[in-house]
Order: sequence, then structure tokens, then C-alpha cells
Amino acid sequence: MRLLVINPNTTLSMTEDIGRTARKYARPGTEVVAISPAHGPRSIEGHFEESVAAAATVEEVIKNRDAYDAFVIACYGDPGLYACREVTNKPVIGIAEASMRLAAFVAHSFSIVSVMPRVKPLLEDLVRLVGMESRCASIRCLELSVLGIDQDPEWAVQGMIDQAKAAVEEDGAESILLGCAGMGPLEERMRAELDVPVLDGVVSAVKIAEALHDCHLSTSKIAAFAWPEAKEMVGGSEALRLGSMGAVDGRVGSVRPGPAS
Amino acid sequence: MRLLVINPNTTLSMTEDIGRTARKYARPGTEVVAISPAHGPRSIEGHFEESVAAAATVEEVIKNRDAYDAFVIACYGDPGLYACREVTNKPVIGIAEASMRLAAFVAHSFSIVSVMPRVKPLLEDLVRLVGMESRCASIRCLELSVLGIDQDPEWAVQGMIDQAKAAVEEDGAESILLGCAGMGPLEERMRAELDVPVLDGVVSAVKIAEALHDCHLSTSKIAAFAWPEAKEMVGGSEALRLGSMGAVDGRVGSVRPGPAS
Amino acid sequence: MRLLVINPNTTLSMTEDIGRTARKYARPGTEVVAISPAHGPRSIEGHFEESVAAAATVEEVIKNRDAYDAFVIACYGDPGLYACREVTNKPVIGIAEASMRLAAFVAHSFSIVSVMPRVKPLLEDLVRLVGMESRCASIRCLELSVLGIDQDPEWAVQGMIDQAKAAVEEDGAESILLGCAGMGPLEERMRAELDVPVLDGVVSAVKIAEALHDCHLSTSKIAAFAWPEAKEMVGGSEALRLGSMGAVDGRVGSVRPGPAS
Amino acid sequence: MRLLVINPNTTLSMTEDIGRTARKYARPGTEVVAISPAHGPRSIEGHFEESVAAAATVEEVIKNRDAYDAFVIACYGDPGLYACREVTNKPVIGIAEASMRLAAFVAHSFSIVSVMPRVKPLLEDLVRLVGMESRCASIRCLELSVLGIDQDPEWAVQGMIDQAKAAVEEDGAESILLGCAGMGPLEERMRAELDVPVLDGVVSAVKIAEALHDCHLSTSKIAAFAWPEAKEMVGGSEALRLGSMGAVDGRVGSVRPGPAS
Amino acid sequence: MRLLVINPNTTLSMTEDIGRTARKYARPGTEVVAISPAHGPRSIEGHFEESVAAAATVEEVIKNRDAYDAFVIACYGDPGLYACREVTNKPVIGIAEASMRLAAFVAHSFSIVSVMPRVKPLLEDLVRLVGMESRCASIRCLELSVLGIDQDPEWAVQGMIDQAKAAVEEDGAESILLGCAGMGPLEERMRAELDVPVLDGVVSAVKIAEALHDCHLSTSKIAAFAWPEAKEMVGGSEALRLGSMGAVDGRVGSVRPGPAS
Amino acid sequence: MRLLVINPNTTLSMTEDIGRTARKYARPGTEVVAISPAHGPRSIEGHFEESVAAAATVEEVIKNRDAYDAFVIACYGDPGLYACREVTNKPVIGIAEASMRLAAFVAHSFSIVSVMPRVKPLLEDLVRLVGMESRCASIRCLELSVLGIDQDPEWAVQGMIDQAKAAVEEDGAESILLGCAGMGPLEERMRAELDVPVLDGVVSAVKIAEALHDCHLSTSKIAAFAWPEAKEMVGGSEALRLGSMGAVDGRVGSVRPGPAS
Repeated sequence: MRLLVINPNTTLSMTEDIGRTARKYARPGTEVVAISPAHGPRSIEGHFEESVAAAATVEEVIKNRDAYDAFVIACYGDPGLYACREVTNKPVIGIAEASMRLAAFVAHSFSIVSVMPRVKPLLEDLVRLVGMESRCASIRCLELSVLGIDQDPEWAVQGMIDQAKAAVEEDGAESILLGCAGMGPLEERMRAELDVPVLDGVVSAVKIAEALHDCHLSTSKIAAFAWPEAKEMVGGSEALRLGSMGAVDGRVGSVRPGPAS
Repeated sequence: MRLLVINPNTTLSMTEDIGRTARKYARPGTEVVAISPAHGPRSIEGHFEESVAAAATVEEVIKNRDAYDAFVIACYGDPGLYACREVTNKPVIGIAEASMRLAAFVAHSFSIVSVMPRVKPLLEDLVRLVGMESRCASIRCLELSVLGIDQDPEWAVQGMIDQAKAAVEEDGAESILLGCAGMGPLEERMRAELDVPVLDGVVSAVKIAEALHDCHLSTSKIAAFAWPEAKEMVGGSEALRLGSMGAVDGRVGSVRPGPAS
Repeated sequence: MRLLVINPNTTLSMTEDIGRTARKYARPGTEVVAISPAHGPRSIEGHFEESVAAAATVEEVIKNRDAYDAFVIACYGDPGLYACREVTNKPVIGIAEASMRLAAFVAHSFSIVSVMPRVKPLLEDLVRLVGMESRCASIRCLELSVLGIDQDPEWAVQGMIDQAKAAVEEDGAESILLGCAGMGPLEERMRAELDVPVLDGVVSAVKIAEALHDCHLSTSKIAAFAWPEAKEMVGGSEALRLGSMGAVDGRVGSVRPGPAS
Repeated sequence: MRLLVINPNTTLSMTEDIGRTARKYARPGTEVVAISPAHGPRSIEGHFEESVAAAATVEEVIKNRDAYDAFVIACYGDPGLYACREVTNKPVIGIAEASMRLAAFVAHSFSIVSVMPRVKPLLEDLVRLVGMESRCASIRCLELSVLGIDQDPEWAVQGMIDQAKAAVEEDGAESILLGCAGMGPLEERMRAELDVPVLDGVVSAVKIAEALHDCHLSTSKIAAFAWPEAKEMVGGSEALRLGSMGAVDGRVGSVRPGPAS
Repeated sequence: MRLLVINPNTTLSMTEDIGRTARKYARPGTEVVAISPAHGPRSIEGHFEESVAAAATVEEVIKNRDAYDAFVIACYGDPGLYACREVTNKPVIGIAEASMRLAAFVAHSFSIVSVMPRVKPLLEDLVRLVGMESRCASIRCLELSVLGIDQDPEWAVQGMIDQAKAAVEEDGAESILLGCAGMGPLEERMRAELDVPVLDGVVSAVKIAEALHDCHLSTSKIAAFAWPEAKEMVGGSEALRLGSMGAVDGRVGSVRPGPAS
Repeated sequence: MRLLVINPNTTLSMTEDIGRTARKYARPGTEVVAISPAHGPRSIEGHFEESVAAAATVEEVIKNRDAYDAFVIACYGDPGLYACREVTNKPVIGIAEASMRLAAFVAHSFSIVSVMPRVKPLLEDLVRLVGMESRCASIRCLELSVLGIDQDPEWAVQGMIDQAKAAVEEDGAESILLGCAGMGPLEERMRAELDVPVLDGVVSAVKIAEALHDCHLSTSKIAAFAWPEAKEMVGGSEALRLGSMGAVDGRVGSVRPGPAS
């Protein structure tokens, strides 16, 4: 299968790290390509950047929807996930949802260890949206920026290990989720130092994408993720206009407009 | 006070309707300006269009943040709400959250009556995010497009009334929320025909904006809605780059990055 | 509009403080009158006193229902709120529900800082009833009585600030709610010392009352808050007997009694 | 043991029915006395009447707290329950909470069948407060007044049976709770006609009271139900003033007031 | 009434303790017999042992279902509770569910104090299944094995008291539940040292069994706890085969199989 | 990898069907072996049979834990899942949890279509335990026994399709889960007739097992699923006694017993 892993931010060294992590755990038959949008923020550390990156990510899915079998959104806020599910019927997987659900098969609870404190409420909302409140022991954040992980990995991994150990000992965490797409390179060290399962989101999403592909499962087009209604898109890129042309399979969405529409 | 009401879609006749509805209920001292972004979809009926419109809406807030005292996002999915709250410290109000919370002061429960069925799961997620599950009797949708409301208002209002009456009689709704920013012109007819309170989102948001302004309340900058971290924005508009320059009040956000950042 | 603010306890100096706070934030066209019932406890610090005060408060609403446009119940347990909503169709606002819902427009979460520890479970139930569990970071109480606020405001405000700061730093609170109607005089000091929005319940309720009035919204009479059924009230005051005479607008409630009733 | 069953309304024939039902299932050693307050509404069918009756009920508990070992509040809204728990340390049981919790030992779910539709939202709030949402299959109401039960019991029981059967067949109810204190006389007929357990609230509360008495359990006085703080009660009855004198056992409540209180 | 208390583990000295505790609080007319299955683990401290003990416990209920009026499962994980409810229509009570629900009548919240930390997530799931999340202040565990209670009761009770006091002071517990069937002998000491109600599960279940018996209530057979379908049981004991013969009262369960079954 | 799929019931033709379904979707490198326990019920349609089958299933895991890399429990109640997770550190997957979590990646909601109505409450509890309430549109049951599926597959599949279509049209289901391990042979027909994703539990669990294996993830042994404590097992099989010997990897569980244990 051909799998497109989209890093919604525009830091290419991080995109390469993500690709490397994805390939490390992908099956032989899985061809992984990792890209970033042409525009957007260098890193994503809040709702503003998520919002900009979400629109850029959905463009990438539209442009590549014929060339790949599945898509992974490699940012731990799952930006644009539901929008991307509308513009293709091939599976689109968010790394946060993937790691939370996969963890539940090997552990009674998880804690997310992530970057700077400001993302904590953002992740709380996400846990609730994914429906995993009853399994989330805690969300712990470091005074660490996304790009700081790569700049001083030793400092980062030590901070992560400290928070993860505290999550296990104080919060009752039985597994640890790495709460940023750029943390793949830290996974090995963390597994070595912790007594509980450690899950990277990119890895989790790659495996879920493969599983869905094997099962011949595609996204339900009955309502929440129906093809966009055909309509005019003012301005914006060619891709966005393409996304507004309706179903690519010629099938209408969920709506039959009223008489005057 | 000066209040900017942003219609996230690009249908200007709808923007004018929204402005008229807002002014109808605004206080004498409230100057309402209604705009649409320069680009984006003609209407918003799913996650894809929400995603594009959210990024466009946050640009409008950035461009206008010095000139207004508060902002209303006039689309019943509250697109980009949290992102907009980051790029200004002035109040930003979504029309869905405003109508749900205001309804709770005059009714034990509400039903949302909205457009085409595909938005129902989108609204279910929103109700949960706003935290009003225990007050939501039902979400009912019509086979009606957003722009269809204006094209055949008589047909639209009749369908709305039928659904609203069914919500009251079958679902236990004690109030009705108009689930689309373009439904303001229908409010009067619906109030006349229903025995329960009817709330329009635009109206609700205008009143909340005035209330917050009177209370001298501004958005909390401590974590969830802290100013964006200063960073490079590749490509994108001037406004987006401006949004990435960090706090406009010179105060840092919640994060003190690690040593190597 | 004419707004009646009812302090359910019988300490008139506190009633005056409440009136002063309400007027400070009311709009020019809002005439605020603050009263206490003629009988009842000097302060409300538990369910027993709430119960007595609720019955006294509903009497005041009945007596004044023709003379005012809206009513505020100025005690942070919202005593008698639902009963009061039955005996008039004009808006009745509780200060707790008002502050919780208004805070949600400027902050991702709130903590309530209130008086003596025994009210904590009472407030927990209230947060759940209002439906704001997902937004409540914590409830923190001081070793402080309701009347102690006025007796030593300096001690009180210092204790409040300490708890509020702890709520922000330890519990993740992004706004602070003043959990007692008598805390209005402390609001200014607290705003000065805290980095997050501070909301007083009385102020919040006044603004909501104005908003509802502007929207021509009245309480839904379809079920939960239908006019009381007409029936005999044994003993009790004239007001209570008046309350038992059924709908003041001549419209029947939700019930059509069975054949033999 | 001596058990006081308080019917919060003032219809004495109903009080006698309640006493009869209680005695029918009480153990030989349990002496049941059934009373009504001297004042208050003839029946309770909404929040207003609950509010008045709650204050009257707490007075009865205060007046009788030395003479009885436990108290039952015989109205299916549990009016004044928490207030009553403050003014004595002997067990106080609500009939709604008792029937819901007892049903859970013999059935996976329950439906409440009650009087007029307006009480449905009131009962929904109560189910949530008691914490039994996950066990409540439905709440079904008849077009029947409280006093109508006694006036035409044949009509009432037939309507109850119809609703109960519908609850079992359509809502998945595995037991039926009689949602009004006056329905004890219908229990036998309903048990005969239904294939699922039928629980009367008065009976349930009597049995719980006996169980708590046998276990030497008294109400926790640590916080939520601590003795009322000693304070002045303006006006009101002798009983209410007595209730405001603080702990009857000489022990202070949860609060140590600040320096100036 | 004749009451069978089944200790699902095979430590007979503990079974005797449990019988003693049950009889201490049983009414004169209640004949208590306490037994253990013939096989199974010496103690239950996890899911594996629960699983084995559940199957053994259901056998005991089948073997004894004609000879007793009600059954108590005396292990604080309520192992096999729902299975046991299927093989008889007489009441079957779990000690955990009994103590949680009974505590709610005398306290606003409870904490469970139990044995070794590994049972904490098991108890969290149980609290959720019973539906008492909103009342559970905390679950606290000691470094204590089940059989350790009897081996050094002095050490055990001291540890229990320390945890219980911490639960009250730090977690807001207003009552304490003894989270192991073998803790009955500690109840007296704990009551003496704590200011809040202390509930033993065995005692609670005995009282609930008596209450249900007095009410002539039997388990609902309509769906969740319908008699097992008649079918072949390969291998296994005589009791298990007897359990697979269908309804003992000759009445069919909930299912009418399709044509080919 | 070597994968053991355990059909907890003892109908070998069904076990073969399950094995066939598993192999159909397994990757080339996955060797699937499907077995049943030597004893236990012919089919599982309630808690009693689940209880017996759970103990038998855990025995099979113990006996085979050295010979396989992962285990699937192929019954849609996930019987014994948590017990099995204790006796090995290799992944153990339940088919119900697997299908629910996998469906969430391709659909906003799911409905489970299963056998006879009596399992509906059992499945409701399971959905809650797995934490997927917010995604479950409905549970629909047929008048069909487990073994009836194989006896008249044409009748079964038609009934399933009817219920599935009703779930989509009336309940808002966006995907369909086959709620019995024996339904794999129906999957193809159902996919052909339905417009939404159809997921078989056995298939889902196989893919999750492969994913976990690829990620080198093993079950967390820190608390909920720690190795059983070493202790005496009275009677029972050799396997059960083996299960009671403690950790197979020589590492202790979560507990350090108190001094006298």
C-alpha cells in the first residue's frame, strides 16, 4: 500500500524524522512518503497554528487523494482530521486518536506526555472528542517547544522520562503516549527507561492505516464525513476549489436540497 | 462598543442579513459591522468548508483586532473559535455556544433545528464540546441547504416550524435554537408559531458580547488561549504572519521553552 | 428595565453591598432594586438555610412579579431558582449559573473560590446540575463565613487571592468565580492581583438579565417551569396562596388532568 | 425502632395511605408514624410546591428529631432531603433515591412511571443527582394529577399499567418504579399485571431506614450534611429557629470561621 | 429467611470471619450460612482469580438455589454477580454494590480503602459499572494482601485508619467503605477512630438481602438476568450442567429463537 | 507471528468458521490457529455462560502462552479478557473492543447488530467499559440464537441486513459492527447490501494483534494486568494452578505485601 504521512507543520527536518519513524515500523509492503504543506507555521503549539495547518493539510489530501491508499496526519492535535475524511473515502488517521485507542489494548490507562503547558487544555478537549476520558490518567507537559525536541534531544528525553515516571507513580498511568509527532526519535530511550508500554503516535497511525487497508475499509460517507457539497469556492488554491466540486465517485452526499436550493 | 460580526462564508447577501439581525437586537451604543472573508466557500455545510473558513476567519480577526472591541463568529459550527481567541484578548463569541448557554436561562432543555442531515454529527460534537449534553433534547435537520433558506424562505420556515413542533412534542424540547447563521430572518415567524422560546445564534452572541464588554472581561491568556508563540509562518497572508509574531501586548505566553529552544 | 435583585438572606448590609455591585455594572436604562425577604437566616451556608431561604425568595418573586422585568437570586447556591421560574414567566437568573456560563466565553475553565469547606459538596452538585463539570477545574473553600467577608474584608480578600492563585497554578483554572454573593466588593482587588478573568456572580446575572430582556425572551412554560397547578395552599403567607392560583396569564400548564381529578 | 414518615403535602387521606403502605412492609419491631406538615400545598406537582414543602418538611424533622430513630420523606421529588440531613444525625431517606437504588439489586434498569408530564424534567434532574442515569431506561408520565390517583384509582392503575408495559417493551425497562408517594395502593395490581419487579418508593425507604438502623449508621457530619452553623433566624417558626442553633450534639460543624467572624 | 453468604475464595478461616460478621448484624429471623466453593484460589487479588472464583461461585448458587432465600457474594469485586443472577430468581447481592449504595444514604461521598494497589483499576471499573462515579471521592490501597489482614490485624487496621483519614482530609470522603470481605473484624476499631460512617460490605449486603426479601422482590427475568438458555454444557460439573437446563420455573427467557435454531 | 484465536464456546464448526474468517484477512506472515476449550457451553448468550467460558478461556491462554505471540478472544462479550491479560504479557485482544475502536477510524458512530434481545444490556455494559458510549448509535438484536446463524444463514443475514438498515436510517449509525463471533461468514453479503462500513470483530482483532506485534508492544504489568500473585489454587486444573504461580518472567507484580503477609 502507498501511505502518505503529512506533517502539518513546515519544518522539513521534522518531516524527515517522522518519515523515518513511520518507515521503521511499517510493513515491507507499505510505501511511506512523508511531506509537509508548502505553507504554514514552522511548528504547531496552539489553536491558531492548528487552524492554519488544518486548511493546509486538507489541501495536501485533496492533491494526493488519487495517488495514495491512506493518509496519516502527523501532529498530536489531529488538525483537520474530520475535514480530510470528507475529501477522500480512503482512510485518514490522526496520530493522537491512533495512539490512544491502540494503547487501550495493552494498558488499562494512559498518560500523554507532551510539550509546553498551553497545549494541555487543547489535549483535554481532544481526549474527550476521541471518547477516551475514562482511560486517560493525566496529561503532563514540559517546558519544551516542538522544535526544541530536535535541538536538544538529550534534555528533551530526560524531561519526558521524568514526567512519564511521575505519571506512572502519581497519576496511575499504565502506559505513556508521546504527545508530539516529533518525539519518535525519543521512543527507544523512553522504552528502555520505563516499565510500561510507550506508544508513539506516528507509529500507531501507520499500523492502524495498514489494518484498515487490509480490511478493505473506507470512510463512511453517510453523514459526518460525506463528500463536500458541490459549491463555489471564492479565491483559495486550486486544491481547495477541487475539494468543493463534490464527490469524486459521482455519488451524492447525504443531502437532497429543498425545492428552491 | 464596536462589534465585528464575521460571517465565515462568502455569500454577501447572507452577511447583510446577519448584520441586519445583529443590529435589530443590538443596544444603541453598539456599532455592528458585518463582514465576510475575501475568500472561502459560499456556504458551510461540513468539516471541509469549516476548516477553510476557520483559517479565513482568524485572518479577519487579526486584521481587525485593533479596531473592534469584540468579535462574533456567525456560523453555527463556531469555526475557528478557539484560534480566534488566541490572536486577540478581546472577547470572541461563537453563535452556537452563545445560543446554547443563553437558552439555559429560560428553558430546561433545547433542541437545535438546522440544515441538511450531514451536519447532525458535527453539531453533536459541538454540543459535547460546549458541555451542554444534559440540556440538549435533540438535533433535528431539514433537507435544506444554507443558501436555500434565502432562496425560498417560505418553504424553509415551514419546514423549520414542523421540525420545531416535533422537537417539542416528541423530544421534550423546551426551547428551540436556530441552527444556522442565516436563519435570523425566520425568527419572528417561528416565535409567532411556537409556544416555547426561540433563540437565534447571532442575536445571542451580540448580547453576550455586550455583556462581556460591560464587565470589562477579556479572554484569559494563561493557557488554552494564550497568544500564539512567536515563530516563522511560511507563505500565507500578511495577516497570518502577523498572527505569528506573538503577543500584541508584549507579554509572553504560557511557555518558557527549554534550554536549547 | 426594572430588575429585582433578591438577596435570599436577611443581612441588610449585605443586601446593600449586592445592590451597589449590581448597579456598578448595570446599564443606564436598568433600574436595580435589591431586597431581602422579611424572614429567614442571616446567612446561607448549607442546605438547611438554602431550603428556608428558597421558600422566602419565591414569595418575594410572587409579590413583585408584576412590578419588575426580571429577577436575580443573589446567593451562590441559586436557592429556589427553579421554583421562582414557575411563578413568573419573566427571566429569573441565579448568580452561580450566570457566572459559570459567562466565564466559559472568556476562559477554557474556571475555579470557584468560596466560603467555608462545608459548601464544597453543595457547589459540586450545583456545577453538575448546571452542566459545567467539564469546565470546572476545582472548587476551593476558605475557613471564612459569609458574614466574615464584610467583617474583615482585608483578611478575606487575602485568603481569596491565595486560593485563586493556587487554583490557577495547581488546578489549571483559567478564570476565577467569586463563590458568594457578598464578594462583589472584593472583585476589584482580585482582578488587580490575578492574571486571569475574575467574575462576580451578581454582576454576571445582571448582564444576563439585560441580555434576555433585550431579546424579549421569557421563561419556557411548556413543562419544567410551567405555571404552578391551581390548588389549595394550607396556611402559609398570602404570597404563597397567590402562587398556588395557577397561571397569571390565564393559560393552563402542561397537564390535562385525568377524568377524576 | 421508631420511624417518622413525613408526607410533605397536606392531604391527610394520602398521608394515611402512605402510613398504611409503610406499615404493610415494615418489620414487627418498626413503629411507623405518618404525618403531614401543618401547612403547605395539597399536592406537589412542580418546583414551587416542592420548595414550599421542603421548608415545611425540615421543620417537622427538627420538631421530631429526638423522638424518632429515622425519617422518610414521602414525596417522589425527595424535597428538602439534604436540608433534613443537616438538622439531625439520624438517617433521613428519600423515597425516590431509595427506590432507584433498591431496584438496582434486582434489575439491570428501571423506568419511573409518574404523574403529569411537567414533572418529567424534574425527575430527570433527580435521577442525575442520585447518580442513576446509566440505569434509568425512561421516565414516563400520565395525564394524571397526584390527587387523581385516589379519586379514580381504577383509571389511574390502568394508565400506569399501560405506561409500564410500554416502558418494558419499548424502552428496555427491567423494573418499574412508582413515581409518586400516593401510588402504594396500586402496587399489588401492578405486580399482578407486570412481568418485572415493581417498587414503591415508600416501601423502599422504610426498608432502607431499617437497614441503616440495624447497622448503627448515622448521617456523616463532616461536610455536606454538617449541623447548621449557629446563627440568627429572622422570623419563621420556633422550629426553624431551633434548627439554627447549631449542632445538637455539641460538636461544631466543618468550619472554623476566619478571625473577624 | 435463609441467607447463603458465599466467600468466593477458599480460605475457610476467612469464610468463618465473614459468617460471624454477617450474623452480628443480621436480624433474629435471618439464618446465615457462610460457605466457600470447594475449589479455587486462596484469595482474590486480581482479574484472574476473580474469573476462576466467579465460575466456582455460580456453581454454589446453582447447587443451593432451592435451599436459600437470597445469596450474598462476599468478595469486594462482586465476582460472578450477574451470572449468579441468571441461575436463580432469588436476590443475589454483591458486597461492593451494597456498600456503595447504602453509603449514599448517609454520606455525600465515599472512599474505598482496600488491599494492594493492583486492585485499584479493578475497583475503578466496578464503581463505574455500579454507576457511583459521582459519589466516589477516591480509592485508596494499602500494601496489604487479603490474607495479611488476618495475619496481622493490628498492622492492617492501623494502615486502614491512616488511609481512611487521608481520604477524609485530602480527598473529600464523607464515608469509608471497607474494600475487602475480610475486613469485617476491623470495622469496630475503624468506627471508633474515624469521624465518618464506616461501612462493611458483608454487613451492607446482608441488610439489603433482608430488605429485598421483606419486599417480596425477586430478580427481573426479562432480559439482562433471564434464565440461561437451555443448551448442552460440555464437561464441567454437575452444577454447571444443571445451570444450562434453562428456567427452573418452566418459563422461557427473553428469546424466541429464529426458525432454524 | 503465531496467533491463537480462542472461541470460548465448544461448538467446533463455529471455531472452524472463526479460523477461516481470521485467516482470510490475516497477513501472509501470520499463522492463525483457532481452538475451543475442552469444556464449556455450546454457545454463549448470557452472563452465566460467559462466566463459565471465561474461566475455560483463561486456561487456554495459560496452556498456550509460550507457543503464541498474541491471543484473540472470539466471543462478542470479550469474556475473561482482563483475566487473560494477567496470565501472559503478550497481547490479548477482545473482538468487541477491537471492532468498536477500529470502526471509530472510519465512521463517526457505530451500531452493533447482535443475537437475541437478552444480550442487549450485556453489550450496553461492555460499550461503557470500553469507553465508546459517545460513538454507539444503538445496539439492535434479532430473535436469533448464536447457533442459529450457521443453521439458517440466509434467514440470519436477511434479519441482520434489516436491522442494520434500520440502524442507519433511524438511529444515525454510520457503520455496522457484527455482534457475534460467528457472523464472519455473513460479512460479505452485508457489505454488498449496505452503504456503510461493516466490521467483523474477529477480523478487527486479528489486525490489531498484528499491529501490536509489529510495534513490539506487550501488556502493561504495572497494576491492572500485573501477573497474578503467587498463591495456592485449591482443586481446578493443572493450567489454573500454573496460572497461580506468579509472574513467568520472574518479576514481581505491583504489590509488596505488608509485614505479616
